Order: sequence, then C-alpha cells, then structure tokens
Amino acid sequence: MTKPSIPKGTRDFGPSDTARRNFIFETIKKVFMLHGFSQIETPAMENLSTLLGKYGDEGDKLLFRILNSGDFLSDVPGDKRDNPDAAGLLPFVSDKGLRYDLTVPFARFVVQHQNEISFPFKRFQIQPVWRADRPQRGRYREFFQCDADVIGSDAIVNEFEMVQLVNEVFAQLGIEVTVHVNNRKILYGIAEVFGYANKFSEITVAIDKLDKTGRDKVKLELTEKGVDEITADRLLDMYCENAETDQLLISLEELFINSETGRKGLSEINELLEYCNSGNLKTKVKPDVSLARGLNYYTGAIFEVKADKVAMGSICGGGRYDNLTGIFGLNGVSGVGISFGAERIFDIMLQENLFPQNIETPAKVLFVNFGKSEEPHALRLISKLRHEGISAVMYPDQAKMKKQIQYADDSHIPFIAMMGEDEIERKQVGIKNLKTGEQQTIDSKDIVEFFK
Amino acid sequence: MTKPSIPKGTRDFGPSDTARRNFIFETIKKVFMLHGFSQIETPAMENLSTLLGKYGDEGDKLLFRILNSGDFLSDVPGDKRDNPDAAGLLPFVSDKGLRYDLTVPFARFVVQHQNEISFPFKRFQIQPVWRADRPQRGRYREFFQCDADVIGSDAIVNEFEMVQLVNEVFAQLGIEVTVHVNNRKILYGIAEVFGYANKFSEITVAIDKLDKTGRDKVKLELTEKGVDEITADRLLDMYCENAETDQLLISLEELFINSETGRKGLSEINELLEYCNSGNLKTKVKPDVSLARGLNYYTGAIFEVKADKVAMGSICGGGRYDNLTGIFGLNGVSGVGISFGAERIFDIMLQENLFPQNIETPAKVLFVNFGKSEEPHALRLISKLRHEGISAVMYPDQAKMKKQIQYADDSHIPFIAMMGEDEIERKQVGIKNLKTGEQQTIDSKDIVEFFK
Repeated sequence: MTKPSIPKGTRDFGPSDTARRNFIFETIKKVFMLHGFSQIETPAMENLSTLLGKYGDEGDKLLFRILNSGDFLSDVPGDKRDNPDAAGLLPFVSDKGLRYDLTVPFARFVVQHQNEISFPFKRFQIQPVWRADRPQRGRYREFFQCDADVIGSDAIVNEFEMVQLVNEVFAQLGIEVTVHVNNRKILYGIAEVFGYANKFSEITVAIDKLDKTGRDKVKLELTEKGVDEITADRLLDMYCENAETDQLLISLEELFINSETGRKGLSEINELLEYCNSGNLKTKVKPDVSLARGLNYYTGAIFEVKADKVAMGSICGGGRYDNLTGIFGLNGVSGVGISFGAERIFDIMLQENLFPQNIETPAKVLFVNFGKSEEPHALRLISKLRHEGISAVMYPDQAKMKKQIQYADDSHIPFIAMMGEDEIERKQVGIKNLKTGEQQTIDSKDIVEFFK
Repeated sequence: MTKPSIPKGTRDFGPSDTARRNFIFETIKKVFMLHGFSQIETPAMENLSTLLGKYGDEGDKLLFRILNSGDFLSDVPGDKRDNPDAAGLLPFVSDKGLRYDLTVPFARFVVQHQNEISFPFKRFQIQPVWRADRPQRGRYREFFQCDADVIGSDAIVNEFEMVQLVNEVFAQLGIEVTVHVNNRKILYGIAEVFGYANKFSEITVAIDKLDKTGRDKVKLELTEKGVDEITADRLLDMYCENAETDQLLISLEELFINSETGRKGLSEINELLEYCNSGNLKTKVKPDVSLARGLNYYTGAIFEVKADKVAMGSICGGGRYDNLTGIFGLNGVSGVGISFGAERIFDIMLQENLFPQNIETPAKVLFVNFGKSEEPHALRLISKLRHEGISAVMYPDQAKMKKQIQYADDSHIPFIAMMGEDEIERKQVGIKNLKTGEQQTIDSKDIVEFFK
C-alpha cells in the first residue's frame, strides 16, 4: 500500500506548527477584540452567483467548484450533452464554490443581514480561503486570512484605527514594520491633471511597479497603454525626483489646483497622518504616492505593511472602499478594511526566531508510570495540578524508564515526575528537569507550588 | 437585485453566535490542553482515494466533491463521453473531496507522518466537516467536530482519560451529564455464546434500538436478520429483565465461561469503572450493555454522553479502535478517541441559558464623539484602557448623541463615556451605565480603575 498523501498545495499542521500558527491568530484576534471588533464566520461554500465575476476572469478560473450532488448532469441541456466539453458543461454541473477571500463573503453577509446589523459595523474574520493557483514556495491552495473592517462610516479616524491595529499586532509579535500609506484619490488626481483621467487604472498599475522593474520598463508600459511619451516622462520625473515624500505631497498641493478629487485625497491623507503623528505609535508611517495596490474596489486610503529587517513583500494591507456592497445591491456604504497575511508573518517569525520558547510543549510534566499500584498516586497529583491550570500527563503504559523519558523529551515535555514505592511511602516526588538534567525531591504537597 | 443567500444547510454566524460558539470551542480546547493533548490541523480537501470507501456506500454519496480544475473532462475515456451519465463520469472529473469527519483524516495523518510522531500520540482537532446530507432541524451540511484521541497505547487508563475530559468539559459548561459505557467485546461475547458470532454486527445494531423502538420491533429485526426466535427471546429477556446494569454485568460473568472475548470485555469495562470510581468525578458513569454505537471500527470500550435534563440524543461519544490506521497500511496501532458534538451542546446551552452574560459584548465602553477638538482626549483615554486590556471604542462620526447611545445599546456595549468641552476642562469624564441608567462623573485619571 502506498503511503497516503494530501492534495498538492495543501498542508498538514502538526503540533508545533499548529501551536505557532495559533500564537499568531490569537495575537491578532486579541488586538481586534481590544479595539471592539466582533468576530463573524461565514460558510466555506458560497453560491457561485456570489463569487463569480468578483475577482476578474483570472479569479473565476481559480475558484474551486463543488460538483453538484447526485445526478450532476441533470441540469445540462440536451445539446450540450452530445460531444460535451468542459466549458459547455461548467455552468450546469456546479452551483457552489469554495470561499476565495473573506471580503466578498463579508460584503454578501452585510447585505444579507443588513437589518440585524448596527452600523458602523466593526467585524473581524479569521478563516481559510481556497484558490486553485499553481502551488509554489510560499503560495498555497488553502491558506488563512485575518481581516478586520469598519463598514458604514467614512470617518478618517477608522483608517487611523487600521494603523493602530498594525502597530499593536506587530509590536506584540515582535516584528518591526513600516506602514506605507497612499490615497486612491491622489492617484486619480495625478492621472486627471496630466489629462489621462480615463487611464487612471492603467497608470496606477504601471507606477506600482516602479520599485520592482525600474523607470524604463514602467515608461514602456505607460506608452503601450496609450499615454504619450512626454506625459509619461513628466509623470516619472515627478515620482523619481521627489522621492522624498513630504516634498512630493507639497508639490501635489500646487498640481491639484485643477483637481478636486486630488485635493480631497490630499486632505484625507493629511488627516490620517495627523492622527498617526499624535497617536503615540511605535510603527513608522510613511506616505508613499507610488503605492497603488491591485484591488479595484479601493476608493480612498490604501496601505501596505512591510517588515523592516526581512526582504519580503507586503505582510498586511488594506484600504477604503466606497461601494463594496454595491455588487450585492446595497449602495452607498463606505468602509475600510485590513488583512493580515498570516502565512508570511509565520515565515518571518520562524526565520527571525520570534516565537515564544516552549510554545510546542503539550504538558509541563510527565509522570513516569511505575505500574498499577503506583498509578493512583500519580493520577491524584496530576488532578491536583490540572485543577490549578497546570497541564500534566502520565505515561499510560508501564514501559521501561528510558523509553518513558525519551517520550517526554521527544514530545517537548520539560519535566518528568517520579513516584515509585519509596517516594510514595515518604509522601514525596522526584522531579527531573530534562533540559538541565537537574534532579530534586520535593514533598508531594508542594507540587503545585513547584510548577507555578 | 435579489438579496444574496448562502447554500442550503450552511450558516452565517454573526457576532453573538460566534462569541457563543467560541466559548464552547475554547472551553473544550482548554480542557484538552490541560490533559496534554496537542492540536493538529488537516486540509479541508483530501484526495478522494483517502475518503472513498471509509464511510460505507451512503457516506460515499454524501461526500462533497471538488470538480477538477481546468478541462475537467480531459481524463474521461472516449467511450464515456458519448451519451455521458453522471455515474460514468464521476470517477474522472473529480479527485478531491471535502473532509467528511476528523477521524479518517487523523488516521491518514498518523500513517503519513508516523516517523515524526512520538507514540502514544495525544492529539486534538477542532475543525469543520462537510456532508451533503438532506438539511433539517439540527442537521447541517457544514458543522464542527471537536475530537481528541490517544493513539499508540492500549492502556485502559486512556479510556478513563476520555471520561475525565467529559467530566471537566461539561462541568465547565454547566451541563449535567451521564456517561454511558459499554465494550464491543461484551457485545461480541453475547453474540458468541448465543451461537451467532457471525451475526455480531446485526445483533448489535438491533439491540441498540431497544430504547427507541421497543422489544417487539427489535425482535422482528433480529429474526429478519436470521436469528432464530427462541434465541431472540432469550437475548431480549436478558436485556430487559436485568435492566439494573450491575446485575447484568454479574450475570454476564457466568454467561462468558465459554467466551474469552466476552471475559476480556468484562475485565476491561470493570477496570475502567474502577478508575472512574476512584477518580473523584462529578459526572455519573453508567455501564450500559445495550449501547452499541454505529461505527464499525470500534473494538473495545465505547461510550456516549447524554444531558440529564434535556431530551436530546447523544452530545458526545467515542471508543477504542484497534486498527483504524490499518486502512492506510499501518497495522496494530490501538487508540481511543472522543468527539464532542458542538452543535447540540450549543443548542442545549442556549435553551438552558448557560452562556455567560455579556458574552457578545464587543467593548466595555463607547466614547461619545463630540467632534474634532474633543476627539484626541477620548482617543487618549481609549489607548490607556486598551493598554490595560480593557476594550474600548469611540463612535467614529460626530452624530447626534441619541444615535450614538442607541448604537452602544444595539451593539451590547454596557457603558458610554462622555468627554465634552466641560469635562475636558475639569479633567473628568461622565460615565453612564446603559443597563441601569446610572450616571456618574469621575476623574479621567481614574478611568482604568473604574473599568477594572
């Protein structure tokens, strides 16, 4: 029989990795809750009518679809049954898909439950999502997202709260980060004053690559997308010469004399920066006018978080959207959201050795099993320890001492306790620290004290 | 546009229900961890080769299958393409399915990772599972299971540990329960001494219904399954006349003179009951020789937990299996496991009003928004509170006071704090308890003290 396996792009998490991942999720959750966000959960499966068309053509292809139960061909029209092809059958054999992100299900949730929700609604959600992407290093077909959103208020103070979440989560995880902030209205204003308001989205996408591909390639992309060469150069001059961002923001003040949207964007980012400056943050906040972010639904502030000491893409990002719920028929609800990239955060913490020590310890102490007549004494002390919140276990079988100690060691249990005939008679217990090898005998009645 | 919806049999969990469900999951998790169980997680999708044939024909039909990505017809042989039918295509269009329970993936995990695991392996797992069952009251297509297992040891003390888990989880949740225990070897012994060892499974299934359908129907089922009428009557006499279970256990001692398996079962259940008697449990433990449980892989102890005060089926159950991993090629690994039925526990707790008060409270206090110049003062105090672990929020917009208070009330936030111009000048803050209507003014510097 061949060893069983799991689908490519998915992962098993054993005890150590689960403990580490929980540490990240619980830290994020604690910060969300301290800020008054309420947790919700949505089903893994959504109707395809909810998911399709929300992530572009590429996204539609990456959805995992659930085959309809029973006779899954029953809805296929007769003419598609002869010489069937996948594209022809697809719309008829599946009406559910796995969640692709947490944002679209959240928008669906808000519209579906709008009458039960008090707005502004502060919600968070920590759940897995699935994408039929080509698996590669750091990219999986099942991964967790950790999202927080405030929906139903356009106050800039909510954007500041997103920065506060970043500040507190990464302080607690021990990762030094910088928050890069921009505003989509500034990007629109720039396109507008250069006479290319209609190419706002193309210009945004091209400029976003300035860091990665360099000026020449970005220029090529701009001209290919229909921006004339002179304007392309002026645009790039602006971005490259005013690399110092404060200066760029000042130069934009002048530029936006003829762009109301641009001026609105500047005023919004300045308000956000003011909150941040007086907010006593450990995290650096940096305006970055070249930041674009790919998602089309953003309409105001956008931000991305990068680790200072590790070369890795963005580990957290988000922004303001003015009409996310519009896709489900509820218009005019503005919101701002953030998503923490748990997988990348995990990689950084592992690499930088930032997880707490002993995180994988299943129990503080293993009681050696000396046999039937000694067992009750060990079990009594174990109950006492557990009652005080100290995890303790007994080796279930009367195996050789060496084997039992090896088991404790392999399982990351730091102490063993020994209660043989002699110790029981003297109402004592022998304790061995497996790390230092140190051994001592204490009175049984002091065991809780010892492990506290 | 019609309101969006979710697939039938699935559920959205809003803030209140998520908080309540988390309370159950976290209580169970805490008890598992105190007993030295380590958490693992497996992917939502498994290869169909892992899942198929493990849950019977009915189970195979209830699996949710993932349509293969891209051209899902590419593996269909030519002759199945003409006049295609669902049964013919099925084996070729899908090679992954959603997890149906946590037991089979756990067995797969143990076999796949056997070289990284220290046995006896104490693991727990709290994850959703999916079944394409007909949805009905209390039965869903997506629901959570909470499983703990000790695998790699046949010591009876592990079975006692399962009873301890039950005892502590339900004590903490405030539900009075009784654990019904039996042993599959006793059931086999009975079938054997009555001359129907080959009908062990049929007899077990029939006897299991004695409580629900009554003696006559069980007798009919027994005879239909090929048990002669006289034996059927003797079997039923035994179960009905010795309803007092201690008596039944004693009468079985005699009966099993000629059944070694039966004697082994009796000795095992007696050892377990001895552990329980000296274990200082709050929970009642009751031997119940009519208990069968449906799952075929059990080979020793079996148990089921019922709430004392609520008429509902079993809310937790489990047992010993001697060869669960054998289906994946690893033989001779004995284990014992338990599964808590979170959905039914949820229903009982809601019905009996057992959830802690204020569990749905997203924040302890809402600071009223008086406008731009007052905001910084509120934000400063909010930071101070959060720093001490007290969740606090500010209403993000400068809305009418009445609207802001209504929002706090609707959101289950118990207090509002008011810092208008006057309070700021006097370095004070007004606090109103929304439940009692009580209002008071305190010095701002005392705010942490007040909410602690």
